[in-house]
Amino acid sequence: MPKKTRNTIILAAGKGTRMKSKLYKVLHHVCGRTMVNHVLTQVEKTKMDNIVTIVGYGSNAVKNELGNRTKYAVQKKQLGTGDAVLQAEPILKNLDGDTMVVSGDTPLFKASTFEKLFNYHDDTHADVTIMTSKAPDPTGYGRIVRNDLGIVEKIVEQKDATKAEQAIHEINTGVYVFNNRKLFKALHQITNNNAQHEYYLTDVIQVLKQAGDNIEAYQMDDFYQSLGVNDRPALALANQVMYKRINNYFMNHGVSILDPSHTYIDVDVKIGPDTLIEPGVRIHSGTVIGKHCVIGANSEIFNCKLHDHVHVISSYLQDSEMDEYSNIGPYSHLRPKAKIGPHVHLGNFVEVKAATIGAGTKVGHLTYIGNAKLGKNINVGCGVIFCNYDGAHKHTSTVGDDSFIGSNSDLIAPVHLADHTFIAAGTNVTKDVNQYDMAIARSRQTNKPGYYKKLPYRG
Amino acid sequence: MPKKTRNTIILAAGKGTRMKSKLYKVLHHVCGRTMVNHVLTQVEKTKMDNIVTIVGYGSNAVKNELGNRTKYAVQKKQLGTGDAVLQAEPILKNLDGDTMVVSGDTPLFKASTFEKLFNYHDDTHADVTIMTSKAPDPTGYGRIVRNDLGIVEKIVEQKDATKAEQAIHEINTGVYVFNNRKLFKALHQITNNNAQHEYYLTDVIQVLKQAGDNIEAYQMDDFYQSLGVNDRPALALANQVMYKRINNYFMNHGVSILDPSHTYIDVDVKIGPDTLIEPGVRIHSGTVIGKHCVIGANSEIFNCKLHDHVHVISSYLQDSEMDEYSNIGPYSHLRPKAKIGPHVHLGNFVEVKAATIGAGTKVGHLTYIGNAKLGKNINVGCGVIFCNYDGAHKHTSTVGDDSFIGSNSDLIAPVHLADHTFIAAGTNVTKDVNQYDMAIARSRQTNKPGYYKKLPYRG
Amino acid sequence: MPKKTRNTIILAAGKGTRMKSKLYKVLHHVCGRTMVNHVLTQVEKTKMDNIVTIVGYGSNAVKNELGNRTKYAVQKKQLGTGDAVLQAEPILKNLDGDTMVVSGDTPLFKASTFEKLFNYHDDTHADVTIMTSKAPDPTGYGRIVRNDLGIVEKIVEQKDATKAEQAIHEINTGVYVFNNRKLFKALHQITNNNAQHEYYLTDVIQVLKQAGDNIEAYQMDDFYQSLGVNDRPALALANQVMYKRINNYFMNHGVSILDPSHTYIDVDVKIGPDTLIEPGVRIHSGTVIGKHCVIGANSEIFNCKLHDHVHVISSYLQDSEMDEYSNIGPYSHLRPKAKIGPHVHLGNFVEVKAATIGAGTKVGHLTYIGNAKLGKNINVGCGVIFCNYDGAHKHTSTVGDDSFIGSNSDLIAPVHLADHTFIAAGTNVTKDVNQYDMAIARSRQTNKPGYYKKLPYRG
Repeated sequence: MPKKTRNTIILAAGKGTRMKSKLYKVLHHVCGRTMVNHVLTQVEKTKMDNIVTIVGYGSNAVKNELGNRTKYAVQKKQLGTGDAVLQAEPILKNLDGDTMVVSGDTPLFKASTFEKLFNYHDDTHADVTIMTSKAPDPTGYGRIVRNDLGIVEKIVEQKDATKAEQAIHEINTGVYVFNNRKLFKALHQITNNNAQHEYYLTDVIQVLKQAGDNIEAYQMDDFYQSLGVNDRPALALANQVMYKRINNYFMNHGVSILDPSHTYIDVDVKIGPDTLIEPGVRIHSGTVIGKHCVIGANSEIFNCKLHDHVHVISSYLQDSEMDEYSNIGPYSHLRPKAKIGPHVHLGNFVEVKAATIGAGTKVGHLTYIGNAKLGKNINVGCGVIFCNYDGAHKHTSTVGDDSFIGSNSDLIAPVHLADHTFIAAGTNVTKDVNQYDMAIARSRQTNKPGYYKKLPYRG
Repeated sequence: MPKKTRNTIILAAGKGTRMKSKLYKVLHHVCGRTMVNHVLTQVEKTKMDNIVTIVGYGSNAVKNELGNRTKYAVQKKQLGTGDAVLQAEPILKNLDGDTMVVSGDTPLFKASTFEKLFNYHDDTHADVTIMTSKAPDPTGYGRIVRNDLGIVEKIVEQKDATKAEQAIHEINTGVYVFNNRKLFKALHQITNNNAQHEYYLTDVIQVLKQAGDNIEAYQMDDFYQSLGVNDRPALALANQVMYKRINNYFMNHGVSILDPSHTYIDVDVKIGPDTLIEPGVRIHSGTVIGKHCVIGANSEIFNCKLHDHVHVISSYLQDSEMDEYSNIGPYSHLRPKAKIGPHVHLGNFVEVKAATIGAGTKVGHLTYIGNAKLGKNINVGCGVIFCNYDGAHKHTSTVGDDSFIGSNSDLIAPVHLADHTFIAAGTNVTKDVNQYDMAIARSRQTNKPGYYKKLPYRG
Repeated sequence: MPKKTRNTIILAAGKGTRMKSKLYKVLHHVCGRTMVNHVLTQVEKTKMDNIVTIVGYGSNAVKNELGNRTKYAVQKKQLGTGDAVLQAEPILKNLDGDTMVVSGDTPLFKASTFEKLFNYHDDTHADVTIMTSKAPDPTGYGRIVRNDLGIVEKIVEQKDATKAEQAIHEINTGVYVFNNRKLFKALHQITNNNAQHEYYLTDVIQVLKQAGDNIEAYQMDDFYQSLGVNDRPALALANQVMYKRINNYFMNHGVSILDPSHTYIDVDVKIGPDTLIEPGVRIHSGTVIGKHCVIGANSEIFNCKLHDHVHVISSYLQDSEMDEYSNIGPYSHLRPKAKIGPHVHLGNFVEVKAATIGAGTKVGHLTYIGNAKLGKNINVGCGVIFCNYDGAHKHTSTVGDDSFIGSNSDLIAPVHLADHTFIAAGTNVTKDVNQYDMAIARSRQTNKPGYYKKLPYRG
């Protein structure tokens, strides 16, 4: 007996004109991941033998996004969903088993829902199983018409529905599992004799029905999983639903979120228990946050690693790492490749880029550290600038442990300060400094008596 | 036959004591515009022959706000809505046609609703048409009592309503269209024989009813348009409803709004398609934003012009212009009259005021540029300060194309740097610099061996 | 006749494992106050003769939080709510009167509700009164089963409820008032013959019922007051409900809150009328804000005093004071003990710590003022740094009235500038300056012709 395969066709060829966007519809993001990637990710978790994504003509952007995680078939003209599915025929037609069809603009489905659909399909020995849902407001959706025995009679589109049919709340989610061979056979029997001159996948249901095949409908629990995104308000809603889902996950794992309705955590983020996330925070994919951290209001974090007990106050962090008990903010900025050691204090208006800062070092205010390696227990004064750019190249400076850099000093890279060096305030450091030496470069102060009266300021 | 006029009386004389405000009630703002201005704006769109705004004694602030867009009549004492409308008699009494009465504290009505009301009034040959709405919770509103034939019997106030009447959801929005002559005739027949000793406009309905006139009620669709603002919670709700309306408009025109429930775009703003607005953003009236821009989280923008492909990260922008492909932030500040050229990069903790910055110039960090004109492709280092104030006057400095201003330099205005000049880091620039020259002003560094041990710092 | 006492037992011994927290459950915060402190505060307002808080083994943290505002009894093992209440027996057993039992994880109850419960208990001559509420969705709660006469029959837990009982919306809030002597007598009669082997307080109701005692139920109005916090989603909800309550209070007292759903004002805050609070603002306990202030979007304020007409733009303020008509921001930071005088202007990227700033002084940009005393009408230029730390100690500097501190100057503490002093831009001030003197310390500018071509920068 040949293997009974499970396959999925993802429809990603639609233009999505209602988005009014130059960007291909299924490439719009929901919680940090494109919609079609969400669908593919959940399909992958359901363990398929074949996944075929139907892309439109010229849609290399979708292929770039999904890479070799899926096979592709191209629909050259937009002739309808039936025509789109038919493009997968060369890849799938000789397979026994079942094929799910799902749209690339439904980012909220979970793998477990797909799994249940397949299982229902198996258990009922169906030839096609329509996934349905109960909509609070079914307006606009295709309704599932069942007879007195509960058996599916047909799917009626909004515009064709009688008053009685309009009152039906069970709607078509647009996801189906078909007997694979019957699907492709039926696709050759549907026509485009309709107002739009399109081939509709739903017409396959009628073909199978007339052939006496077994039509089933699996009603899923959570209507919001089936949300399809056709315009920007729906895109906003999809984000809202998924953010809520993510926030609930973290709260149920011990993370405190003060205002979940205003906290934006993308997919692919990890957060430890007893960490507090304050309102207005955005945490982007790739970020890992430890236990007992505080992420202060309106902070934004991209792809960073924060160890335990890190405290971030209203700051902007990119591609960086903060070791345990370090803190930053308010209004500071880690640019990529900042590596902040344990117990480091970064205060306000501080920018760090491509720099390592050792344990216990303090950088209080109005400072830029770029392309540098700082040791431990250093005091960096206010307004210190690591001048790393000579107009053509970036150079690196180093500062040894236990050093003191006075306020308003500049380190003109490359300079190397040994351990235990002291830079007087206001010094332009252009030469290396040896251990235990103090560097100073400043003009002596002159007081000019009575000059105030010659000057224009009068308070 | 004399001209049949359309007129509107806007009631703006109420003190609004429940606002608990020194500010005149109708002058509170909703989405960047005062409430009475919202009402007037919509009335203007409906094309009136006469608009009369009834103001209270001493309410010059309302006249200052609305100017000569409306005629005014003064109600000297707060003797009720009927008395207020009567103040318009000298202006309107000899006109044929119809007069709408609307309150200045209902900022959410749309012109199209007023238009429909007038049309309904015309079509039904009514002498007065009450605009009604279906309230989800009608508590507190006057209820519309109709007889078995659907004909309006009366308006019953909450406190006078029977249990059955309290169950009525159709409520009085407080907007009416009257036959103009009958309105003023009836106003002389109402009395103040009531607990408040006030003349109520609603009593005119009873006078007309008793005279056998035709009383109609036009039920509008959208209850929220009729929201009246009597206290601060209602003011917050009005803002919420209008922000939602504005956000939906932009989303339906191709703007992505990540969290519409937390995005604050005022009236009189334009935004191009494929621009992304992140959460917590406020965009004030007068701002124009192009296509493919990103307005990062928690940015606030007042009256600016942003061309296409501009990227703003968490910054505060006032009365300025950013040309295409320029970017700013996080935590930067454009003060009025900053004119930022194309492809300019403004990084973090940067302030620009009354300055022009040429194409491709980079201003990375911790810099203040005030009263200056910078050319193209300049590199402004970190911590550079344009010292524009001598204690009495602001002076202007200029920097030519392709120049390099080293970090921690000060340009003490007025100074003029030609094209291709180079300022060494840490220089106080007090004299002009010619083309291809380098300016330097700094003390030579001295290293004092062993001084660290004499100093107090121990890491 | 012995005194009829009113007593309360607060249950605060539960571990709260569903919070998944190292922190004791009742010590989690709601709007700036721990949950158990909220409960105690409301109980105190209800005027009790005795308050006993039941704490778990090792729960010194709860005692530290509540101090001597309550008596304590320790429940050594978690043997159920009945066992917890029994620990109060040594303190309460000989008292006539009534004892309320309330849980330490229900932070939303108001004193007025407790008062009404006691009054109902008195009026009905009840032996026990169960406080009940009508839940929109009663799932999970104990249901109140009443007979045809409305008399309470029993409390049925969710898992034991019949279909009919599940349909009951009246639920047990977990708050009771007992006849004190009958409570402790009955507590000795309940058993732990149940699946969890715990002593349940609800079993006391059955004991009293069987003894023929009078069981009453007082149904409170506002279901949300009874919210119990067992996990982080409920903690978030409790915050949301209380923030809304606080915001409504302020709006009804003349404060404008643009978006109440995104404004976070803790308990113990005062705000005057006609002050505007913009979205994303957090105001922490201990803060007092005057009239006619503006607190701009995303500002965060801890324990500050702001006088009338203060304007804060997107800034972070801690333990400081701002006098009338002063302003700050955007992106500035008051650290503890900043005392800002009237009409002072603090611009962007300004940090003030332990410093006094006199009336009318201006500090525009990129400045740090720490450990200093500034007089009146001073102009502090851009990039000025008060260098207050020599590596071991903080030192204090002073600046007299009407002085001018040029941009990019450093004041190396301790230095003292008299009234009417002038510091040239770019000066390191190391010595005191007398009245009417100008201090200057800078190198003379040298222009090196043609050097640009030797340098790497090419624009």
